[in-house]
Amino acid sequence: MQYQADVTIELKAGMLDPEGTTIKRALEHLGYETDSVRTAKKYTITLEAESIHDARENVEEMCQKLIANPIIHNYAISLRETE
Amino acid sequence: MQYQADVTIELKAGMLDPEGTTIKRALEHLGYETDSVRTAKKYTITLEAESIHDARENVEEMCQKLIANPIIHNYAISLRETE
Repeated sequence: MQYQADVTIELKAGMLDPEGTTIKRALEHLGYETDSVRTAKKYTITLEAESIHDARENVEEMCQKLIANPIIHNYAISLRETE
Repeated sequence: MQYQADVTIELKAGMLDPEGTTIKRALEHLGYETDSVRTAKKYTITLEAESIHDARENVEEMCQKLIANPIIHNYAISLRETE
Protein backbone atom coordinates (compact mmCIF):
# COMPACT_ATOMS: atom_id res chain seq x y z
CA MET A 1 0.00 0.00 0.00
CA GLN A 2 1.08 3.59 -0.67
CA TYR A 3 1.15 6.17 2.09
CA GLN A 4 1.75 9.94 2.15
CA ALA A 5 3.66 11.45 5.06
CA ASP A 6 3.63 15.20 5.72
CA VAL A 7 6.72 15.94 7.80
CA THR A 8 7.05 19.39 9.36
CA ILE A 9 10.47 20.38 10.71
CA GLU A 10 10.49 23.39 13.04
CA LEU A 11 13.22 25.09 15.03
CA LYS A 12 12.95 24.38 18.76
CA ALA A 13 11.48 27.19 20.87
CA GLY A 14 14.10 29.76 21.82
CA MET A 15 16.25 29.01 18.76
CA LEU A 16 17.10 32.09 16.67
CA ASP A 17 15.30 32.10 13.31
CA PRO A 18 17.36 34.42 11.07
CA GLU A 19 15.15 33.74 8.03
CA GLY A 20 12.04 34.61 10.01
CA THR A 21 13.67 37.79 11.32
CA THR A 22 14.69 38.81 7.81
CA ILE A 23 11.16 38.30 6.49
CA LYS A 24 9.68 40.21 9.44
CA ARG A 25 11.93 43.20 8.63
CA ALA A 26 11.19 43.02 4.90
CA LEU A 27 7.44 43.00 5.65
CA GLU A 28 7.90 46.04 7.89
CA HIS A 29 9.62 47.86 5.00
CA LEU A 30 6.54 47.09 2.90
CA GLY A 31 4.34 48.51 5.65
CA TYR A 32 3.15 45.26 7.25
CA GLU A 33 3.55 45.04 11.03
CA THR A 34 3.80 41.55 12.52
CA ASP A 35 4.41 40.32 16.05
CA SER A 36 6.58 37.41 14.88
CA VAL A 37 7.50 35.32 11.83
CA ARG A 38 8.76 31.74 12.30
CA THR A 39 9.86 29.49 9.47
CA ALA A 40 9.64 25.72 9.02
CA LYS A 41 10.20 23.11 6.34
CA LYS A 42 7.57 20.70 5.13
CA TYR A 43 8.37 17.46 3.30
CA THR A 44 5.70 15.43 1.55
CA ILE A 45 6.98 11.86 1.21
CA THR A 46 5.08 9.12 -0.62
CA LEU A 47 6.23 5.59 0.12
CA GLU A 48 5.12 1.96 -0.10
CA ALA A 49 4.64 0.04 3.18
CA GLU A 50 2.88 -3.07 4.52
CA SER A 51 0.92 -1.04 7.06
CA ILE A 52 0.51 2.50 8.36
CA HIS A 53 2.54 1.36 11.39
CA ASP A 54 5.46 0.32 9.13
CA ALA A 55 5.17 3.55 7.16
CA ARG A 56 5.36 5.62 10.37
CA GLU A 57 8.35 3.64 11.63
CA ASN A 58 10.17 4.20 8.32
CA VAL A 59 9.45 7.94 8.25
CA GLU A 60 10.50 8.30 11.94
CA GLU A 61 13.84 6.72 11.03
CA MET A 62 14.18 8.98 7.96
CA CYS A 63 13.68 12.01 10.24
CA GLN A 64 16.14 10.83 12.87
CA LYS A 65 18.83 9.78 10.38
CA LEU A 66 18.59 12.53 7.78
CA ILE A 67 15.78 15.06 7.61
CA ALA A 68 15.76 16.52 11.14
CA ASN A 69 18.64 17.66 13.35
CA PRO A 70 17.56 16.49 16.84
CA ILE A 71 19.63 19.24 18.50
CA ILE A 72 17.83 22.21 16.94
CA HIS A 73 14.66 20.77 15.40
CA ASN A 74 11.31 19.41 16.47
CA TYR A 75 9.49 17.33 13.87
CA ALA A 76 5.91 16.21 13.42
CA ILE A 77 4.64 13.49 11.08
CA SER A 78 1.11 13.11 9.76
CA LEU A 79 0.40 10.01 7.69
CA ARG A 80 -2.43 8.90 5.45
CA GLU A 81 -3.08 6.17 2.91
CA THR A 82 -3.04 7.55 -0.64
CA GLU A 83 -4.80 4.74 -2.55
CA MET B 1 -6.94 41.07 18.39
CA GLN B 2 -3.99 38.82 17.65
CA TYR B 3 -4.14 36.19 14.93
CA GLN B 4 -1.81 33.39 13.83
CA ALA B 5 -1.46 32.61 10.14
CA ASP B 6 0.13 29.37 8.92
CA VAL B 7 1.29 30.01 5.37
CA THR B 8 2.46 27.03 3.29
CA ILE B 9 4.37 27.78 0.10
CA GLU B 10 4.67 24.87 -2.35
CA LEU B 11 6.15 24.54 -5.81
CA LYS B 12 3.51 24.29 -8.52
CA ALA B 13 2.86 20.78 -9.90
CA GLY B 14 5.34 19.85 -12.60
CA MET B 15 8.03 22.20 -11.25
CA LEU B 16 11.37 20.50 -10.62
CA ASP B 17 12.16 20.13 -6.90
CA PRO B 18 15.96 19.72 -6.69
CA GLU B 19 15.93 19.68 -2.89
CA GLY B 20 13.31 16.95 -2.86
CA THR B 21 15.27 14.95 -5.41
CA THR B 22 18.45 15.28 -3.37
CA ILE B 23 16.71 14.08 -0.21
CA LYS B 24 15.10 11.17 -2.09
CA ARG B 25 18.57 10.03 -3.26
CA ALA B 26 20.10 10.48 0.18
CA LEU B 27 17.33 8.39 1.71
CA GLU B 28 17.96 5.69 -0.91
CA HIS B 29 21.63 5.60 0.09
CA LEU B 30 20.47 5.02 3.67
CA GLY B 31 18.28 2.17 2.44
CA TYR B 32 14.90 3.93 2.43
CA GLU B 33 12.88 3.63 -0.80
CA THR B 34 10.35 6.38 -1.48
CA ASP B 35 8.08 7.06 -4.42
CA SER B 36 8.57 10.84 -4.19
CA VAL B 37 9.78 13.62 -1.88
CA ARG B 38 8.41 17.16 -2.31
CA THR B 39 9.54 20.14 -0.25
CA ALA B 40 7.64 23.22 0.92
CA LYS B 41 8.13 26.18 3.25
CA LYS B 42 5.87 27.00 6.15
CA TYR B 43 5.70 30.45 7.77
CA THR B 44 3.93 31.05 11.06
CA ILE B 45 3.03 34.74 11.26
CA THR B 46 1.43 36.34 14.31
CA LEU B 47 -0.13 39.73 13.71
CA GLU B 48 -2.62 42.19 15.19
CA ALA B 49 -5.79 42.92 13.18
CA GLU B 50 -9.31 44.31 13.69
CA SER B 51 -10.92 41.12 12.39
CA ILE B 52 -10.05 37.74 10.90
CA HIS B 53 -11.09 39.18 7.55
CA ASP B 54 -8.52 42.02 7.89
CA ALA B 55 -5.88 39.56 9.04
CA ARG B 56 -6.49 37.35 5.98
CA GLU B 57 -6.36 40.34 3.64
CA ASN B 58 -3.03 41.47 5.16
CA VAL B 59 -1.47 37.99 4.93
CA GLU B 60 -2.70 37.57 1.33
CA GLU B 61 -0.92 40.82 0.43
CA MET B 62 2.24 39.70 2.29
CA CYS B 63 2.24 36.51 0.19
CA GLN B 64 1.67 38.31 -3.11
CA LYS B 65 4.21 41.05 -2.45
CA LEU B 66 7.00 39.13 -0.72
CA ILE B 67 6.67 35.58 0.54
CA ALA B 68 5.43 33.70 -2.55
CA ASN B 69 6.58 33.86 -6.16
CA PRO B 70 3.32 33.62 -8.14
CA ILE B 71 5.13 32.14 -11.16
CA ILE B 72 6.45 29.01 -9.44
CA HIS B 73 4.57 28.80 -6.13
CA ASN B 74 1.13 27.96 -4.83
CA TYR B 75 0.35 29.21 -1.32
CA ALA B 76 -2.26 28.31 1.27
CA ILE B 77 -3.17 30.34 4.37
CA SER B 78 -4.85 29.01 7.48
CA LEU B 79 -5.77 31.57 10.13
CA ARG B 80 -6.86 31.43 13.73
CA GLU B 81 -7.28 33.81 16.65
CA THR B 82 -4.51 33.34 19.22
CA GLU B 83 -6.04 35.06 22.29
